[in-house]
Amino acid sequence: MDRVTIPDIVVGRLPLYLRTLQLMLSEGRQVTSSQELGERLGISAAQIRKDLSQFGEFGKQGTGYSIEFLTDQLRSILHVDKIWDMVVVGAGDIGHAISRYLGFSNRGFRVALVFDNETAKIGQKIGDFVIHDIANLPSMVQKANIQVAMLAVPASQAQVVTDILVKNGVRAILNYAPINLNVPKGVYVQYTDPVVHLQRMSFYLESMND
Amino acid sequence: MDRVTIPDIVVGRLPLYLRTLQLMLSEGRQVTSSQELGERLGISAAQIRKDLSQFGEFGKQGTGYSIEFLTDQLRSILHVDKIWDMVVVGAGDIGHAISRYLGFSNRGFRVALVFDNETAKIGQKIGDFVIHDIANLPSMVQKANIQVAMLAVPASQAQVVTDILVKNGVRAILNYAPINLNVPKGVYVQYTDPVVHLQRMSFYLESMND
Repeated sequence: MDRVTIPDIVVGRLPLYLRTLQLMLSEGRQVTSSQELGERLGISAAQIRKDLSQFGEFGKQGTGYSIEFLTDQLRSILHVDKIWDMVVVGAGDIGHAISRYLGFSNRGFRVALVFDNETAKIGQKIGDFVIHDIANLPSMVQKANIQVAMLAVPASQAQVVTDILVKNGVRAILNYAPINLNVPKGVYVQYTDPVVHLQRMSFYLESMND
Repeated sequence: MDRVTIPDIVVGRLPLYLRTLQLMLSEGRQVTSSQELGERLGISAAQIRKDLSQFGEFGKQGTGYSIEFLTDQLRSILHVDKIWDMVVVGAGDIGHAISRYLGFSNRGFRVALVFDNETAKIGQKIGDFVIHDIANLPSMVQKANIQVAMLAVPASQAQVVTDILVKNGVRAILNYAPINLNVPKGVYVQYTDPVVHLQRMSFYLESMND
């Protein structure tokens, strides 16, 4: 399968399908349909069928999808049929919250190491994690062969830390700092900034009163 | 201006332009170009010009954009030339982090009220905020005329809380719970789930080794 030919917008919907299917599994469900998935997600059934058809034939006409089978297929497609160790950089409020986040479980990721550069924080613990000195990040990340990072440092430090992460083998960064990062080809960045989400909604909000 | 005619994907880029322009302002800069914005954001200059042209003429050929003027225009377009009070529901780790988040400042939003349903948490404080009993949410949200919420409750409670929020006047919800919400027309939801972001990257990661 040539992943380059799959539109990124389709890739972006696959985790939503997987999340919904895993929820259905936890509800004890066995079979679903593109109609039901679509209603839960606010996506048309046709779009869901089209997205999934890019990867093969997962359902039978008239009988719907086996939830367990489709879950396994999506986990394989998204490469979360394994567990990715992650490094968290920045042990502030956000770093704390993501280090202790329970939502990673059974979804392909786990926090392995936490770093900060503040002397007062180094050696302290977040849950089970010792906060390590960022000076030790290169050797520890290389040794553990960690390829995924969550970045929760101030915007002013985000690019510098990113460069260190990339230099030491990290290829996927979820960036909580409100700034865009420059990374070389083959390194992926996703952004999460609450204000970007909020402003995207406030655009529409006030307009009802205009 | 008919906001319905602006593609939502364009709306989604405006907060990124505004964030970058505000950063440039803080750097003491006065003039920028679609080329420079594009390089900082990884978006083509042509795309940026096209997006902005939907809202008017903001730059002069050859002289670029006044950063301050374009910032003001975007703040007005996104309706963040005012401050939106927000309610946080859920005072767990994520609720703590977003209640104390410093990144809202100067970007159009501020936390006004925090709620939880756990007896042990009610009356405790997060920074300057008292954690209120969710039973009082309807009256307090209505009285304060709050229209924006950040939802940081477990997935199993997210829809119930959403229904309460909507019933009491909330029209924009940033949902941190890993589940899709059903809301009536005219209510907006944005989602932030770290695993969705991470899986979107792991799709590409392993493929380099396939």
